Amino acid sequence: MTRIFDCTNSSFSHLCTTRNFLFNKHIRPIPKNNPKPNPKNHDHLSDTPKHPLDPLTLVEIQKVRSTLSSHALFASRAPHALHSVVLEEPDKNLVRQWEKGNALPPRKASVIARVFSDSHVLTVDLSTGHVDIVDSPVRVLGFPVMTFNRTIISPGLNLTDVICFPISSGWYGNKEETSRLIKIQCYLTQGTANFYMQPIEGLTLLYDLDTKQILEVSDTGRAIPIPSPNNTDYRFASVPTLDKIRILNPISMEQPRGPSFVIEDNHLVKWANWEFHLKPDPRAGLIISRWTRDVMYKGFVSELFVPYMDPSEAWYFKTYMDAGEYGFGNAVYMDGIFAAADGTPYVRENMICVFESYAGDIAWRHSENPVTGLPPIREVRPKLTLVVRMVASVGNYDYIFDYEFETDGLMRPKVGLSGILMVKGTAYENKNQVKKDKEGNEEELYGTILSENVIGVIHDHYVTFYLDLDVDGLDNSFVKVNLKRQETKPGESPRKSYMKAVMNIAKTEKEGQIKLSLYDPSEFHVINSGKTTRVGNPTGYKIVPRATAATFTNNQIWATPYNMSEQWGGGFFTYQSHGDDTLAVWSERDRDIENKDIVVWYTLGFHHIPCQEDFPIMPTVSSSFDLKPTNFFERNPILQASPYFERDLPVCGTESVSA
Amino acid sequence: MTRIFDCTNSSFSHLCTTRNFLFNKHIRPIPKNNPKPNPKNHDHLSDTPKHPLDPLTLVEIQKVRSTLSSHALFASRAPHALHSVVLEEPDKNLVRQWEKGNALPPRKASVIARVFSDSHVLTVDLSTGHVDIVDSPVRVLGFPVMTFNRTIISPGLNLTDVICFPISSGWYGNKEETSRLIKIQCYLTQGTANFYMQPIEGLTLLYDLDTKQILEVSDTGRAIPIPSPNNTDYRFASVPTLDKIRILNPISMEQPRGPSFVIEDNHLVKWANWEFHLKPDPRAGLIISRWTRDVMYKGFVSELFVPYMDPSEAWYFKTYMDAGEYGFGNAVYMDGIFAAADGTPYVRENMICVFESYAGDIAWRHSENPVTGLPPIREVRPKLTLVVRMVASVGNYDYIFDYEFETDGLMRPKVGLSGILMVKGTAYENKNQVKKDKEGNEEELYGTILSENVIGVIHDHYVTFYLDLDVDGLDNSFVKVNLKRQETKPGESPRKSYMKAVMNIAKTEKEGQIKLSLYDPSEFHVINSGKTTRVGNPTGYKIVPRATAATFTNNQIWATPYNMSEQWGGGFFTYQSHGDDTLAVWSERDRDIENKDIVVWYTLGFHHIPCQEDFPIMPTVSSSFDLKPTNFFERNPILQASPYFERDLPVCGTESVSA
Repeated sequence: MTRIFDCTNSSFSHLCTTRNFLFNKHIRPIPKNNPKPNPKNHDHLSDTPKHPLDPLTLVEIQKVRSTLSSHALFASRAPHALHSVVLEEPDKNLVRQWEKGNALPPRKASVIARVFSDSHVLTVDLSTGHVDIVDSPVRVLGFPVMTFNRTIISPGLNLTDVICFPISSGWYGNKEETSRLIKIQCYLTQGTANFYMQPIEGLTLLYDLDTKQILEVSDTGRAIPIPSPNNTDYRFASVPTLDKIRILNPISMEQPRGPSFVIEDNHLVKWANWEFHLKPDPRAGLIISRWTRDVMYKGFVSELFVPYMDPSEAWYFKTYMDAGEYGFGNAVYMDGIFAAADGTPYVRENMICVFESYAGDIAWRHSENPVTGLPPIREVRPKLTLVVRMVASVGNYDYIFDYEFETDGLMRPKVGLSGILMVKGTAYENKNQVKKDKEGNEEELYGTILSENVIGVIHDHYVTFYLDLDVDGLDNSFVKVNLKRQETKPGESPRKSYMKAVMNIAKTEKEGQIKLSLYDPSEFHVINSGKTTRVGNPTGYKIVPRATAATFTNNQIWATPYNMSEQWGGGFFTYQSHGDDTLAVWSERDRDIENKDIVVWYTLGFHHIPCQEDFPIMPTVSSSFDLKPTNFFERNPILQASPYFERDLPVCGTESVSA
Repeated sequence: MTRIFDCTNSSFSHLCTTRNFLFNKHIRPIPKNNPKPNPKNHDHLSDTPKHPLDPLTLVEIQKVRSTLSSHALFASRAPHALHSVVLEEPDKNLVRQWEKGNALPPRKASVIARVFSDSHVLTVDLSTGHVDIVDSPVRVLGFPVMTFNRTIISPGLNLTDVICFPISSGWYGNKEETSRLIKIQCYLTQGTANFYMQPIEGLTLLYDLDTKQILEVSDTGRAIPIPSPNNTDYRFASVPTLDKIRILNPISMEQPRGPSFVIEDNHLVKWANWEFHLKPDPRAGLIISRWTRDVMYKGFVSELFVPYMDPSEAWYFKTYMDAGEYGFGNAVYMDGIFAAADGTPYVRENMICVFESYAGDIAWRHSENPVTGLPPIREVRPKLTLVVRMVASVGNYDYIFDYEFETDGLMRPKVGLSGILMVKGTAYENKNQVKKDKEGNEEELYGTILSENVIGVIHDHYVTFYLDLDVDGLDNSFVKVNLKRQETKPGESPRKSYMKAVMNIAKTEKEGQIKLSLYDPSEFHVINSGKTTRVGNPTGYKIVPRATAATFTNNQIWATPYNMSEQWGGGFFTYQSHGDDTLAVWSERDRDIENKDIVVWYTLGFHHIPCQEDFPIMPTVSSSFDLKPTNFFERNPILQASPYFERDLPVCGTESVSA
């Protein structure tokens, strides 16, 4: 599954500025459009960890490999593979106490290895070379993150015309219990780069990842034509020259004085009042840690879930657990160093990009006329944003993960969804051909006819964020601030009622299970009741849901006590998991969470009823939520922010720059 | 109430480019920060209407005044005032049939005049000079839009220290039935420009707008200290020099080839595939009309409602109906020409601004690796937006109204809320002083202590948009596309259920009354069932709610049949209205709306529990909703959009430009 990010074609000129900045070079003119590979760190051989949370270096991964090669577990000639080699993060208290200049806590690697069909979780001490064999935190029937390679992609079919690959896994029957099986579907590649729009409908193969054999070929045999490739190619190169018309002039963000953030020691991002540790991760994509002044210890995408809505044989198994199954990753300007299945390190270049953004929005404003006798007032502050972006192309879908930091203390995780729809073939070329029963009900299509013989299937996307908030320290509480309609007493007021804020502190996990309610509105605060503001309010941050799709059978927000082993909402092993090691199971223990070190989980959802505008490639749809200070600051933290002045702004000409 | 907009301090350099563009001048270098008054049209004496919907010109308003001055109604020496002089829009069909080059339909003015305490609605034919006296569309007890002036602001108090003004009106008792009364509250202006933070709590005056007399002084006499002015001033000039530190470098949007839109005949905006008529309005602020290809005939802010949550004597009346009572308006680059109370025209400069925006977002993208045997694919298109902005400072609040047009056909109305909170005085300086009853319940404060002696009161904001959609013509239907969980039949599928889209066409208005439901999800489409796409889907647009506050007693979406007289959701006369002429009343008639010319109403809400970060000025909070094409286009309308190329981007230096 391809994971190629392309700031290179999207020409974020401000990113390019950032790029030069990142590597402490101020080259002018800046190549706007074809950033070269990193001028330094390209081989990463000289990388050394500077922070307790820094990811494993290339050299450290090599050491893990050599250490394991001599380990008894791998001494035999048994087939084995490493599925994950990542930093075993030091104890949270060690990290919180650590200060720059201190020695790093002992460096350890956490390894998931498969030998035959067994999964092992190992810890490798990088200083002593000692190997610990650990039990997986909760024993479940599940499989490690899969590491794909081309060897499984061609089950004997002619690759010049047809491409077959596993769309997803998921739980589909008993025969998989003891082996790693995957469903494979085939597409015609003739005539378009967008083969996803040419499904060979009804044909699916059941494939054994271990024996690399096809166990079952299922062809429902319906005479469903393969859709035409017309109008499916989205590459600019494939646009007829005469149609290559630009309807809009270019616009770019310019920073004549350079960007306002620095990245120290490769991972420490400093901007405005914010500072946080940023690192790539093969599963979560990116991880943000130690967001200070103490707000969040760690935040990342814990799980991504795309249940497909079409239950027919060739489709029911399309239940995506991408984050868990395929791992995540790509973006620009920070490289990821990961381990291949044989343990050798490789570099995923430009996996994360960081840039500042300005869209003409207003941070705050007020106008006052001279009625007060004072001179007229016109005060406005521009809203600037720091964006940390990671884009993952997971098969047909492209997920854009942005973490937007604003100067007023707000942080907005945002998920953008683009790429190609999963479609199914149909014999219908027009909606008016759809069969009706005697009551006149149309045959269920499970979606929308997007083009002749193509149905876009209705589906959802759910993304669960792990948010280990530490507001002004560890002792936090999760508070539901409920707006209740309060009747007024007779004669108290001409108003019959008013809205009253009622604070409910969650004592245990079950009280921290939240289903959003539009008509019983609440705010959701994480407060430190031990720290109060000058006028006595507990300091806090709130989770502000925005537009989201939800299911009543799931909670949108959870609060759980911090537990190092509870980070992957779908389970540490997600592949074909039965769901015994999940957020829902942990939370059912109903542990105490008042004045504790707590973790908040937020699930953001999309319902997607495809329409023709999504064909052959989807315009990005986005959803987000906010982490927002609430009595965290004594007053508006950007009260004294400067407005813009003419002298600050760039002088721009129209000449182009040669790369 | 001041209405001064200040792109001048916010330095939208792209706006400035737009500005030059608007007036067909391409000056370089562009002054980035102090746009001069319009180089042309400054007196507007030469303006002539070019489109049937163009607002009244300065000359036309003068003609209305001279015509009425000789009219019997005003011949007497009775006190009279004009409260509104606007274009009487021609019949919708005339406007739809009109094409450039045709003669304009007869120009008429609609006038609201008051003589003594009576309100009259008049129509003045500008060609014949004929005056029609019209009944207000629905007879209600209500009053016209108020036009404030300073004469009501000083009820005998010393203006050097104290400012008194009407916070709002609203329905508060019987004594107002026959006269126009308003509550006045007083603030101390010593020591800060932000007098809103120094309420003289408990003192309110009941003031007669007609007799200009104070009828009643109410002082609850509580010994509540006036809050200190410390830390309340938000002006940059008041920031101590040593604190004037810029934490961020400037960033600006640059368009070396100029903007991509044109504004023809002062009101016709053309950008990308879009074209619409844009005009200022003294009540709605701005009105967007004739958005073509037929999507929307007319859209604007119909009502703004801010119920305050504190029922105590000095507060219960703070029920804002700003849009209806104070009129709206300001922004940059399009002037508004309005009539004063005596009928003389005046120019409100720079009331609307139009600009393009780019925040580094992605319109669509996909990456594909070479697994198919094809070369690797990296396709990204930048998301550009056209923003139409109007900012209204309504007393303490600043409302930022953006209409964002995207190239993929999406249009996003967005409301940003900033400015100053309405606060009340309190004797408390710290939360720990708040009295508790014997059960330990804290005394109700109706809000949050923001600073010593200052309480920010809990309140809501509701903004209702009028959306006269005409999707591919007049015959539209409002469709609720409900996602229902469908159980599968035994053996049909390993899945127990799937989500099925069920179309429900609203036959009558009551079926068009929508309360949003998170757990019974629906999409809300306006379709033209007479027009279908190539594959047979009805062409449509959908209303996509985003994060919003809602009350169960109100609908968030309504669909009504088009009726020229039903445009102001709070009633044509809103001031002290009993609500007899409102959207709720019209909709109760339950008229037929299937395959009709229909209007959709969307109400966007905010719950606001103030926090200290809102003191002394609020960081902007925004909410929005989308109008999005759904099977309106045959395919992704920006499939062939061009990516950026290096040669397109500007070359920027750091030298500043002198204005």
